[in-house]
Amino acid sequence: MRTYRGQRFLYKKLATEIEKKIHSGAYRAGDRLPSIRHLQKKLNLSLSTVYQAYIELETLGLVEARPKSGYFVKPVGLHQLPAPSYSKRPVKPRKVELTSIVNSVIAAAQNPELTHFGSSALSPDILPFKSFHRILKNITGRDMKGLLTYSLAEGDFHLRQQMARRLLGLVEGIGPEDIIITHGCTEAIALSLQAVASPGDVVAIESPTHFGFLQLLDALGYLAVEVPTNPQTGVDLDAFEKMLLRQPIKACIFMPNFHNPSGALMPDENKERLAGLLGHHRIPVIEDDIYGELYYGKQRPSLLGSFDSEGLVITCSSFSKVVAPGFRVGWTIPGDRYKEKIQKLRAGVSISVSTLDQYLLTQLLAESGYERYLRILRNNIKRQVYQTASAIQTYFPDGIKLALPKGGNLLWVELPRQVDSLEVYNRALDNNISIVPGWACSLAKQYRNYIRMGCGSPFTPETEKAIKTLGTIISQVSG
Amino acid sequence: MRTYRGQRFLYKKLATEIEKKIHSGAYRAGDRLPSIRHLQKKLNLSLSTVYQAYIELETLGLVEARPKSGYFVKPVGLHQLPAPSYSKRPVKPRKVELTSIVNSVIAAAQNPELTHFGSSALSPDILPFKSFHRILKNITGRDMKGLLTYSLAEGDFHLRQQMARRLLGLVEGIGPEDIIITHGCTEAIALSLQAVASPGDVVAIESPTHFGFLQLLDALGYLAVEVPTNPQTGVDLDAFEKMLLRQPIKACIFMPNFHNPSGALMPDENKERLAGLLGHHRIPVIEDDIYGELYYGKQRPSLLGSFDSEGLVITCSSFSKVVAPGFRVGWTIPGDRYKEKIQKLRAGVSISVSTLDQYLLTQLLAESGYERYLRILRNNIKRQVYQTASAIQTYFPDGIKLALPKGGNLLWVELPRQVDSLEVYNRALDNNISIVPGWACSLAKQYRNYIRMGCGSPFTPETEKAIKTLGTIISQVSG
Repeated sequence: MRTYRGQRFLYKKLATEIEKKIHSGAYRAGDRLPSIRHLQKKLNLSLSTVYQAYIELETLGLVEARPKSGYFVKPVGLHQLPAPSYSKRPVKPRKVELTSIVNSVIAAAQNPELTHFGSSALSPDILPFKSFHRILKNITGRDMKGLLTYSLAEGDFHLRQQMARRLLGLVEGIGPEDIIITHGCTEAIALSLQAVASPGDVVAIESPTHFGFLQLLDALGYLAVEVPTNPQTGVDLDAFEKMLLRQPIKACIFMPNFHNPSGALMPDENKERLAGLLGHHRIPVIEDDIYGELYYGKQRPSLLGSFDSEGLVITCSSFSKVVAPGFRVGWTIPGDRYKEKIQKLRAGVSISVSTLDQYLLTQLLAESGYERYLRILRNNIKRQVYQTASAIQTYFPDGIKLALPKGGNLLWVELPRQVDSLEVYNRALDNNISIVPGWACSLAKQYRNYIRMGCGSPFTPETEKAIKTLGTIISQVSG
Repeated sequence: MRTYRGQRFLYKKLATEIEKKIHSGAYRAGDRLPSIRHLQKKLNLSLSTVYQAYIELETLGLVEARPKSGYFVKPVGLHQLPAPSYSKRPVKPRKVELTSIVNSVIAAAQNPELTHFGSSALSPDILPFKSFHRILKNITGRDMKGLLTYSLAEGDFHLRQQMARRLLGLVEGIGPEDIIITHGCTEAIALSLQAVASPGDVVAIESPTHFGFLQLLDALGYLAVEVPTNPQTGVDLDAFEKMLLRQPIKACIFMPNFHNPSGALMPDENKERLAGLLGHHRIPVIEDDIYGELYYGKQRPSLLGSFDSEGLVITCSSFSKVVAPGFRVGWTIPGDRYKEKIQKLRAGVSISVSTLDQYLLTQLLAESGYERYLRILRNNIKRQVYQTASAIQTYFPDGIKLALPKGGNLLWVELPRQVDSLEVYNRALDNNISIVPGWACSLAKQYRNYIRMGCGSPFTPETEKAIKTLGTIISQVSG
C-alpha cells in the first residue's frame, strides 16, 4: 500500500483502499485482515486511523470483528448478491393514467410519520440545517427588504454564477447565462418537456422509471413508451435503437446517473452511443441528473449532455437531493437550441423562483465549507445505503436480488417471483413502514415483485427493526 | 356630520367623509372647507385630528391650503377628468405571439434601476419587512431542520388554515381543504387553465389585459380572443354575450376586481349576470383576484365565484400584492368540479411550494398586527395612486383621460389620439423612467395611445420630477 498524505479523512482513504481489495478479490470471504498494529506500523499511521477504517468497513457490512481474533472479510459480501433482472418485452405507447392505488403509494412515500423507505428524500439530520440557521441569523432588516422583491425570471445572477463555477468541470465553458433556475427539478423537466413536445406526443421513459415522471406525463396529457433499462447500466441501447425505428418518439426523459429506482449508472461508452442515436434521429432528451452529485467513488459521473454535439440534451437537476427538498430551487441547462423557448415558459408559467430560497443557497454555496459538507454527505449516504443493503441480506428471505448502486440513495430489490409487492406494501403500511412497490414505477405493471427502498435517513436500531419486519412480511407473502 | 366613535384613524374617517362630499358635489371646486376650529367644536374632535384630515385631503390632491384663508376644494378635482374610452370592435381569436418589443417592455417593467411606473409590484418600503425580519430571528435550529423538508403538495396545512379563516367572509364555508397553494398567482392560473382547456383552445381575455396573461398563453400555446372591457365596470357583458354565440371559447381569464391595467371594478349586478352567462354556456372562468385586498373603500369587493352556482369559477390569487412579490406563494380555490385535476397538476409539475416561504407567511398571518398592517398598506397605496394621478393632471398636457380606481395600484391613462405610447416609452427609457405602453396590453394593438402607470412606491419629489419629465415627453410626441 502506498503512503498517505494529508491529514483529513485518512481513515476513509484507507477503508476505500481495503474495500477495493475486497471487491477485486484480493481479499476473499473469510480472510483475516492485517492486524491493526501491523498496518499502523507499515503505513506509518496512528492506531486510531486504522481502527476507524476497520469500523467503517464493518459499518458498510464488508467485514466483521471476531472477539480476540481480529477483523475478517464477511462470508457473503453484498457484492455477491445477483443483480435484479429486467424485462426486454417491447411495449406500445400508452396514455399515462395513474390509478388511485399508485396515487396512494405516492402519498404514503411522502408521509413523514412512517418509517419511510418509501421516500427518496434525504432526512434533514444529514442536511446543512446548521449552516442555513447561521446564514438566516446574519440577515439584516435591510437585506430582508431586498428579499421581498422579485428575482429575475431566469434566476438570481449570483446563484447562477456560483453554480456555473461549480459546473465548469462538467459542462465546458458554462456561464451564468446558460442556466435557468426553476421550481425544483420537476418544474425544470416540465418546462423542458413542454418546450420540445406537445400533450398527446409520445415520450420515451425508462422501465422501471421514477413515478414522478408518470405523474408529470399524466398531469400534462402525454403518452409514454417504456424503454427496457438494465438496472446496472441504464437504457438498453439495442432495444432502444429498434424502438426508435418503430415508435413515433418525440422526446425522452432519462436518468443516466444513479437512476431512480434502479440506481443504474450508464457507462461513458453507452452515453456516447445514446447521444449518437438521439442525434441521428434528432430526438431531444431531458437528462435528469438529480443524483449526479451523490457518487460514492472518486469522481462525479459525466453528463449525457457532454457527449451531445447537436444540442439535443437538456440537463435538469436541483438542490433537493444535496441541500434541501423544501427549497424549491432547481435548474435546467437548455443549450442554445431550446433556451429561448424554455425561458419563455419559465417567465410565463410562474414568473420567478423564491428570492429568499435562492439567497440562502447562494450564501451556502459561497461558503468554504460547502465542498467538505458534500463529501461528508456522500459518505453518510453511502453508509446508509450499504447498511440497509446489509440488513436486507440478513433479514429478507433467500432468493432476493439486489445490485449495490454506485451513487444515489435508493435500493431496487427484486423479490422472489411469487411475491406481490402491493401485498408487501399494504402489510408494511399496517406496521407504519412505507416502501414503493415496483409496479408504481411502470405503466406496463412489469415490476410486480420489486420494491424500491429509500435510504435517506441515518441507519438506526429502528431502521434495522423495520427491515426485519419487512423480511417477515415478505416471507409470509411468498407463502 | 355624525359623531365619531373609536379612537383610531379618526382623521381618516373624517377625511373620507369630506372626500365623499367632494365627489358627490356637496362641496364644489373652489368652495372653502369649514375652518378647523369650527369643525373641531361641531364634531367634538381634537384640533389635531381635523388638521390631519385636511392634510390627508391635501395629500390626495383634493384640496389646497391658501395662506391665511383656509382649505379650498381644488379647481379641477381628479374626479372631473373624463374616463378612458375602450374599443367595442369585435376581434377574432388569434395565436398569442409576443413580439420582441413587448418582451423588452416587460423586461423594462421589471428593471429595478428605473423609476418604475412600469412595474405593478409594491416597493418593499411599504411591505412588512420588519415583521419578517423579526420572524426570521425567532427561527431556531430545530425549526430550520423542519423547514428543509418538503411541504405537502397542496400546501402547508397551517397556512391554508390561516387563509381559510380570513377568506370565510368571502367564500361561504371555506376550509383548508378547499385551497391549493401554488408558486404565485401566475402558476395558479397556469394550472387552472391547463385543467380546463388544452393548448390550441380559445381563451377569452379582457381588452386591455394583463400582459402576463399574454405571456402565459404564448408560452403554453393557447389562442386568445379579446373581450371589450369597460375601464370602470369591467367586461362589456352585452358584447361578451354576443361573442359567446359566435366564438368557440373554452375558458376565460378575467380580473373582476381592480383590473390590470384599467383598475375596473365590476359591480355586483354585473358579476351576477356574468356568472349566469358562463353557467348557461358551461364555460369555466379563471378569476384573478390578486388586487382584491387592495380596496380603498370600506368593504372588500365580492368574488365572481360567490355568484357562481355551477362550480365554474376558479378563483386565483397570491400574497405578492399584499405581502411580498419575492415569496412565490399563491393559491387557487378550485371548487369540487376541478379540484382533483388541479391537485394532480399541482403535484405533477412542481411537487410543492417553498416550505420556508410558507412558514414565514403562516407566522405573519397569525400575528395580531396583520389586519392593522393591511389597513395601513391600503391607505399608503391609495395615497400613492391619488398623488400620482394628481401629478399627472398637473404635468401631462390637456386631453388626457383617467379614471381614479377604487382599488389596486395601477393607473390607466388615455393620451391624446395622436400620441404613440411606444414612442413615449422609448423616450422615457432614455430618461431612466419605465412605463407600460398600452399596446403591450392587447394583441389587437388597440391601445396605441394608452399607458399603464404603477404606483407601488411612495410618492417622492423624484416621482414628481419623473412625472413632469413624462409630461414633457408626451407634449413633444403629440407634436
